[in-house]
Amino acid sequence: MTKIALDVMGGDYAPDEMIQGALDAVDKNGGVSVTLLGDAQTVGAKLAGLKPGWENGGRLSLVDAPEVILTEEPPVAAIRSKKRSSIVMGMQMVKSGEADAFVSAGSSGAVLVGALSIVGRLKGVERPPLAPLIPTDRGVTLLVDCGANVDARASHLVQFAQMGSIYMENVVGVKNPRVAIVNVGAEEEKGNALVKETFPLLKACPGINFIGSIEAREIPHGGADVVVCEAFAGNIILKLYEGVGSTILSTLKSALTRDLRTKIGALLIKPALKDAMKVFDASQYGGAPLLGLNGLVVKSHGNSKRREICNSILQCVTFCEQGVNEKFKAGLLGGDGAGDSGLTQGQGAAGQTPAADSR
Amino acid sequence: MTKIALDVMGGDYAPDEMIQGALDAVDKNGGVSVTLLGDAQTVGAKLAGLKPGWENGGRLSLVDAPEVILTEEPPVAAIRSKKRSSIVMGMQMVKSGEADAFVSAGSSGAVLVGALSIVGRLKGVERPPLAPLIPTDRGVTLLVDCGANVDARASHLVQFAQMGSIYMENVVGVKNPRVAIVNVGAEEEKGNALVKETFPLLKACPGINFIGSIEAREIPHGGADVVVCEAFAGNIILKLYEGVGSTILSTLKSALTRDLRTKIGALLIKPALKDAMKVFDASQYGGAPLLGLNGLVVKSHGNSKRREICNSILQCVTFCEQGVNEKFKAGLLGGDGAGDSGLTQGQGAAGQTPAADSR
Repeated sequence: MTKIALDVMGGDYAPDEMIQGALDAVDKNGGVSVTLLGDAQTVGAKLAGLKPGWENGGRLSLVDAPEVILTEEPPVAAIRSKKRSSIVMGMQMVKSGEADAFVSAGSSGAVLVGALSIVGRLKGVERPPLAPLIPTDRGVTLLVDCGANVDARASHLVQFAQMGSIYMENVVGVKNPRVAIVNVGAEEEKGNALVKETFPLLKACPGINFIGSIEAREIPHGGADVVVCEAFAGNIILKLYEGVGSTILSTLKSALTRDLRTKIGALLIKPALKDAMKVFDASQYGGAPLLGLNGLVVKSHGNSKRREICNSILQCVTFCEQGVNEKFKAGLLGGDGAGDSGLTQGQGAAGQTPAADSR
Repeated sequence: MTKIALDVMGGDYAPDEMIQGALDAVDKNGGVSVTLLGDAQTVGAKLAGLKPGWENGGRLSLVDAPEVILTEEPPVAAIRSKKRSSIVMGMQMVKSGEADAFVSAGSSGAVLVGALSIVGRLKGVERPPLAPLIPTDRGVTLLVDCGANVDARASHLVQFAQMGSIYMENVVGVKNPRVAIVNVGAEEEKGNALVKETFPLLKACPGINFIGSIEAREIPHGGADVVVCEAFAGNIILKLYEGVGSTILSTLKSALTRDLRTKIGALLIKPALKDAMKVFDASQYGGAPLLGLNGLVVKSHGNSKRREICNSILQCVTFCEQGVNEKFKAGLLGGDGAGDSGLTQGQGAAGQTPAADSR
């Protein structure tokens, strides 16, 4: 049984969609139990209204977390002072082993700070990266790091590649995933200082299928399965994806409603269009895991609905069942016997601050 | 009369579309003369075939440039060895004053190296940035720098903001353009080391309308008129724009041709769709200028056709007529009497290498 703690108070559609997502997950997968963290009175009433017998033989439970961390609060202070918030309590449950994983659609900053300060890093991991799946016309690509570490070093990027590769293979099921580093050109001599330093380390790194540089243009075409970059670039990629996509779709929408002729046309193409655009809906894959923790923390998008929450929970189940953290340890410490991976270990994460609120 | 040198040999559609673009520009604007640089025999024959009397009273002329620099050639070596190439000859014409500006759709690397090593920088300019206009749903935004300088410093970004602002106001005609720095969050304390160092300098910089940080998500929505970043980030923005756009449009296209029903629908919406998507066509604005040179060099997209070439030429005319380089000098040297702009001058561009082939 995989035990998940769920933040019911975070996200634009909290608590209703969080509750629904949890109910769905417990229904879909008999091997998961979910602890809902939130205002017990409100959430309890909603659960009772939605589904009598919601406890599902104890697989769904409710723990009172009366405090709420708001998105606009400075994360470090919030984590320190709000001990009874769903985020702090969820992290504590992972730390103590009461839960295997914690899922939240709340404040990105608080989730990152809480994960690092309460759950802590796996031994050997320098900087846990945030790794969302982004849609491409060939499926999905893992983007590491999209916002956990500003001013990362080359050794961090090598670990991102290693952990991203293991995640993609074991959780998403892509065999021998192609790993690439984001660059401004395809040639090895291109790039800024960080990329030039990282490139040969990735080339020499055992256990990953490094295919070289990827230009941003090729990311939406699925040019790699794992795309490695520091968080400033990763955050630009993630947010520009959203921005360009929404701009084009809203332009398209207003064109389709221009007059009667286009409205009839729109009716005719609607089903085909809807199918096609499903490709770009990443919610089916769940949230963004923070890789390399003593446990698992998944940050769902701030606008997550039941589908994404349910999938975030199921994603955690796969992560735990596949023993991904054990594989991280083996991979990072050279446990596959393939020699020096170019890593320096245990340098501490003192400089790690969340790069972004990636909601 | 503004004198333009045009590289007829560079770009995917050279020489035909280049020749057509030059003919169009000379027709449209009586105040411009264009010198075509390319293989004189081939180009001369094409000109004679297209338009008897193509010389247009001497406003169109042809100079033999028998050598061609290929996109895949290492730029520094190519510029050094191919003295009779259209790129080197065009740069020489700008340097000597025979031409006011040079337009090329050829190798980005060679254009950047040639511009810096032959044309040279304006006094006081540290690193000339490449500044394309990118389409937004409110018009266009100037992206500085999209690929000329990797590992830029804060003082460089301040100059990008100053020159970008002057360019946007005088060439594109946006009054008091809003200048923003690309960042991972809207708050002043967010960002990597470079952004944190640059932010207060921009805030204190006279003569620009600095509005703070811009997240990548807001760029396609026209959140700023001038978007400042170092070239690695700029190159990601430019290329991801292309990548996401083309992925969505090709998905849309295949949805529209799925069956008879969608094909009829597609016919009905086609005119409206075409109008709407015109918003995202940046070719009407010409190419990307390299700002801060002793003259002007404009890099047109590698896939430029006659329309973009014509507009690149006309863009140079506006640049020269508005005396933009004089305004750069006045702005950068604090000529507007507004005091210290936080710049260090004349540090040399020894470290400047083209970040990318931005074709």
